[in-house]
Amino acid sequence: MSNLIQTGDNADITKERRNATFDIHDMSLFLYGSEEILKRRKEMLAFVKSKPEFNDPIPTEFMNREQRVDNGARKIVAMTDNTDEIDAGDFFGEGMYFQGLIMGRDLHPMSLHYVMFLPTIQGQSDDEQLDEWLPLTISRSFVGTYAQTELGHGTNLSKLETTATYDPKAGEFVLHSPSITAAKWWPGGLGKSANVAIVVANLYTQGECKGPHPFFVQLRDYDTHEPLKGITVGDIGPKLGFNTSDNGFLLFNNFRIPRRNMLMRYAKVLPDGTYIKPQHAKLAFGTMVFVRSIMIKDQSTQLAAAACIAKRYSAIRRQGEIKQGAGEVQILDYQTQQLRIFPVMARAFCFMFAAYEIRDLYMKVTEQLGEGNTELLPEIHALTSGLKSVVSYEVALGIEQCRMACGGHGYSQASAFPEIYAYAVAGCTYEGENIVMLLQVARFLMKAAEEVMNGKAKLADICAYLAKRGANKSRLRTADEYRGDVIIEDLEHVARNQVFRAYDSLKRKEKEMPSEEAWNKTAIELCKASRWHVRLYLAKNFLHKISTAKGAIREPLENLARLYAFDIITSSHGEFLRGGFMSEAQLDELKGGFYTLLERLRRNAVAIVDSWDFDDKELHSILGKRDGNVYSSLLDWAQQSQLNRTQVLPTFNKYLGPMMKEGRSKL
Amino acid sequence: MSNLIQTGDNADITKERRNATFDIHDMSLFLYGSEEILKRRKEMLAFVKSKPEFNDPIPTEFMNREQRVDNGARKIVAMTDNTDEIDAGDFFGEGMYFQGLIMGRDLHPMSLHYVMFLPTIQGQSDDEQLDEWLPLTISRSFVGTYAQTELGHGTNLSKLETTATYDPKAGEFVLHSPSITAAKWWPGGLGKSANVAIVVANLYTQGECKGPHPFFVQLRDYDTHEPLKGITVGDIGPKLGFNTSDNGFLLFNNFRIPRRNMLMRYAKVLPDGTYIKPQHAKLAFGTMVFVRSIMIKDQSTQLAAAACIAKRYSAIRRQGEIKQGAGEVQILDYQTQQLRIFPVMARAFCFMFAAYEIRDLYMKVTEQLGEGNTELLPEIHALTSGLKSVVSYEVALGIEQCRMACGGHGYSQASAFPEIYAYAVAGCTYEGENIVMLLQVARFLMKAAEEVMNGKAKLADICAYLAKRGANKSRLRTADEYRGDVIIEDLEHVARNQVFRAYDSLKRKEKEMPSEEAWNKTAIELCKASRWHVRLYLAKNFLHKISTAKGAIREPLENLARLYAFDIITSSHGEFLRGGFMSEAQLDELKGGFYTLLERLRRNAVAIVDSWDFDDKELHSILGKRDGNVYSSLLDWAQQSQLNRTQVLPTFNKYLGPMMKEGRSKL
Repeated sequence: MSNLIQTGDNADITKERRNATFDIHDMSLFLYGSEEILKRRKEMLAFVKSKPEFNDPIPTEFMNREQRVDNGARKIVAMTDNTDEIDAGDFFGEGMYFQGLIMGRDLHPMSLHYVMFLPTIQGQSDDEQLDEWLPLTISRSFVGTYAQTELGHGTNLSKLETTATYDPKAGEFVLHSPSITAAKWWPGGLGKSANVAIVVANLYTQGECKGPHPFFVQLRDYDTHEPLKGITVGDIGPKLGFNTSDNGFLLFNNFRIPRRNMLMRYAKVLPDGTYIKPQHAKLAFGTMVFVRSIMIKDQSTQLAAAACIAKRYSAIRRQGEIKQGAGEVQILDYQTQQLRIFPVMARAFCFMFAAYEIRDLYMKVTEQLGEGNTELLPEIHALTSGLKSVVSYEVALGIEQCRMACGGHGYSQASAFPEIYAYAVAGCTYEGENIVMLLQVARFLMKAAEEVMNGKAKLADICAYLAKRGANKSRLRTADEYRGDVIIEDLEHVARNQVFRAYDSLKRKEKEMPSEEAWNKTAIELCKASRWHVRLYLAKNFLHKISTAKGAIREPLENLARLYAFDIITSSHGEFLRGGFMSEAQLDELKGGFYTLLERLRRNAVAIVDSWDFDDKELHSILGKRDGNVYSSLLDWAQQSQLNRTQVLPTFNKYLGPMMKEGRSKL
Repeated sequence: MSNLIQTGDNADITKERRNATFDIHDMSLFLYGSEEILKRRKEMLAFVKSKPEFNDPIPTEFMNREQRVDNGARKIVAMTDNTDEIDAGDFFGEGMYFQGLIMGRDLHPMSLHYVMFLPTIQGQSDDEQLDEWLPLTISRSFVGTYAQTELGHGTNLSKLETTATYDPKAGEFVLHSPSITAAKWWPGGLGKSANVAIVVANLYTQGECKGPHPFFVQLRDYDTHEPLKGITVGDIGPKLGFNTSDNGFLLFNNFRIPRRNMLMRYAKVLPDGTYIKPQHAKLAFGTMVFVRSIMIKDQSTQLAAAACIAKRYSAIRRQGEIKQGAGEVQILDYQTQQLRIFPVMARAFCFMFAAYEIRDLYMKVTEQLGEGNTELLPEIHALTSGLKSVVSYEVALGIEQCRMACGGHGYSQASAFPEIYAYAVAGCTYEGENIVMLLQVARFLMKAAEEVMNGKAKLADICAYLAKRGANKSRLRTADEYRGDVIIEDLEHVARNQVFRAYDSLKRKEKEMPSEEAWNKTAIELCKASRWHVRLYLAKNFLHKISTAKGAIREPLENLARLYAFDIITSSHGEFLRGGFMSEAQLDELKGGFYTLLERLRRNAVAIVDSWDFDDKELHSILGKRDGNVYSSLLDWAQQSQLNRTQVLPTFNKYLGPMMKEGRSKL
């Protein structure tokens, strides 16, 4: 980080860095947590850069789909050859960074092998199965994927159509796709790369359906890689993003597998077809919480990258004059540009701190689970479902804000925005569709509200505000004094109000119609309640976190956290005016405070994004280059365009050339 | 349209169509304006479908960039061979539809030849030049483009760096790019297709800079298509969308052109270098208004397409149960799904009606200009700048809402959403960046506010509300009675308040600092004022338009228009609570009304989008297919994936195969 300012850099960006009021290194330390982590980032970066096999021969945006898939396979083999270089037990930290440096913003042919296939083998196989499959998985003797979702069926698992019917005579399961909608659809790597899969199918034995269970299924010949007889498998075609990944489809035509290919740690089918029920309910909540902490960290990193690109570009881009004759200004000086980018930056910090907190909660829960204590689980599960939803949506919006703030150049793939957006916005849909998630949170909140109404709520910290009796007026006096607890009280007031408004509305409707219908007719209000619950948590955690910062980084961090809170309040000010909780004068004061915060954050705008320690390799953006030499790099980048390999494209002689010749001949 | 229901269709979608309360044909008629237009759409569609040369050999999403460019050139030659088939004078109607059917959602190598090059030749050449260049342009003897924007310079034309220096000895202009930032950047077709261009450069003669002027420049050899000496030209690389178009860059190295290549209808340079100033200010406002009416029509069509896809898919997709045991429901029955899609549909109608209105205003203005009357111009120019900004942004948001409402399948290119989004969202940036546009509107509004304050406002219809003295309480009683004028009054109140709040804030700041700085520090409030001004216009025009509908289509149209207004009010309810203009009880009443409207629109949900008369060819979406047979079509579509051309990809033997073999050998 000491080398952020170098000879030959764009003068404007150097000026920004010299003007910063704090030391970047201190901010990075606060953001990432320890000197050791920062050191390891440097080491991993140097290692990746030093190995040609981790790098792309040409930027991936100039490759067609086949080339991207080929390049991805090449890199993933190289990457998994070198896992000794990192602490594989620390995926949240080292694993994500290492993978991101090598694979960029994309999945790879073995994403699901590691993220879903391996954990399922570990968690659901009995000991004998584990002995057989685990070494093969770890030694990369096959490439696995996880096939659950079907063409016609997503969140509602009980409706999966793929069947696994036990045939006691042969001692085999018959896997079958009874219709087109039963086709497995979407699993990463399934199309072309994987040769085995965990397939989730409805188990039938002795004439009865026992619900969805996982099976280990070989899909392709281990040597020739041809699909086995009875298997139809292929790529599902291009997507908005992730086009290095061969997400696939899979159809079974009475395909037989041995009985012991059913994963039997919990449920079992005996040779005669007797079904043995699982003894313990599966506790997958813990893993889901961990996956979400990773997701939220990933999302906040993408958002910070977008803000970094937009800020650096806005520092070097000069356009228009504010004072006539004073020359064109850096577009970062426009209030409207600050509005587009600074709140996005604040959100990136906020979400990153939430990711850390969730990871810590996960560790706490895991410890408690070990002691048989499941008390915290529902609350944390609800919180993370909501966080996933709110964060992914705001990240998507924020990335597009940053992109549009860069004008025409933001639309070019040279900016990296199209790639960042396609990658991040998928998070609104996978790992639980956002609206479904919000409604899950609402289930929990309505239960909590009911308990509060009945006076027997036992709420842990995150939800305690629901049982609090808050003030009926905001304590806001001046925007400058509006900090910490006073802000939190106000957000609590609005979150609590919305939760109980939704609760009352639900109860009213339940008197008139069946409760499921009442739920559906209250769904929009319920989602709102969930969003406020999550926003409150995010703001609280952010304000708390920055209160621990020391020295020169404290002020910019406070400005960011307060900008985040002021933004939420002013952009939803109707909720705060309700019942006279805030007066219009208070809101106008807050609006003024919001504009003042934009001004205050201007000076450190570039330093704040520098502190995320993005290397140019990681950012992969011409507009966001450290040195600010954007224009010459854009030209260099463009020269590599597929279309620039010849001066005259073959198409000229086929179509436009003859057309023009004919045109001239007529005159 | 009579054949919307066919044998073999998905049963759910047929049920939807049978349940409609109105005749689709009546709605199409209301939407498009006349039987003749509907007939012509059918004829053009049949013609395009009948000619193989207009159609793609494989869907474009399976082509790489080179193939797309080749395919685009092939189709554009075929298309321009057949312009006799349409009324070329009616681009707003026939031209756009014809081009959209053939080119899809993309530009083509001759987009700028027709949209910018030709009109500039027509408008800026003197008679002699016109005689020379116009026949060549129309006969397609060359392919032209329009090169103005530079790598480092966009909206601020006065800072363009490209110079055209007159050399009186040779009687030539010397075109030169003094730096990298002077490179022309973005012009469509410039990279590989165009061989001539209108280049805008700063004119220097007799040692003085005379500002930017247009020049006709040959870029490539007419026969070999090789770039001429002194010209560096190429493609700027892949973008978020429009990848059939070879947007290009262009650098001049002391490139000479004859004096008469300067377009001389207005300004002139005589052989001795004497500069003759233009006699008339150019009146380009009119054309801009027309271009925007086209843009708004295009944007609303894209939004309607997105809503059409999302609604049809939500009609055939069944997932989850509302009543237990009653089977999975159509996801269109979920209130949250309705919230995502129905307001988007309402906006599409609203924007389309605005496009018609702007086209009519354009014709009125053109007539008035002919009579030397420029009275309406500033107001309409401001309005269309604002419309362009508000419409393009809401269209982009709406498309993504629709995409996410379709879950995982929405993320696939089979849905067409990625293409629709990339195409439409560009509209936020081109033809005037959205924030710059909003600030232009604000200039006009501040002038109007000043005039109102001084009691001498002469405001035409669109702005008359600024001088009105409205009530200080909303007349809203029940949501059901909340219609027409009462809604408009309330929107006027809020728009007027925001305009004057921004005005007051600007005036206050102007006392403390230079007015340019004050402007910048009020910019966010100014943009808000512009947005309310536009929203008011949109709602007013929508409510007015539907009040002319007769028969069974009236009710669904009223529901749509009121949904649009209720949505605006409830989602910005803080503005309506201010000063006690609305009470909380009124707002809650309105919210209830909003949910009721969603329910009422449910029954006609599919019929309403059917009435847009999208053929499957135009929609180009598997999820949005007329027949609702989505799943089998998804599978057929996926089979065409580039990766499915062989069962085993070459990459298997290079990387994953050897890796697995090694893994197995170790065990």
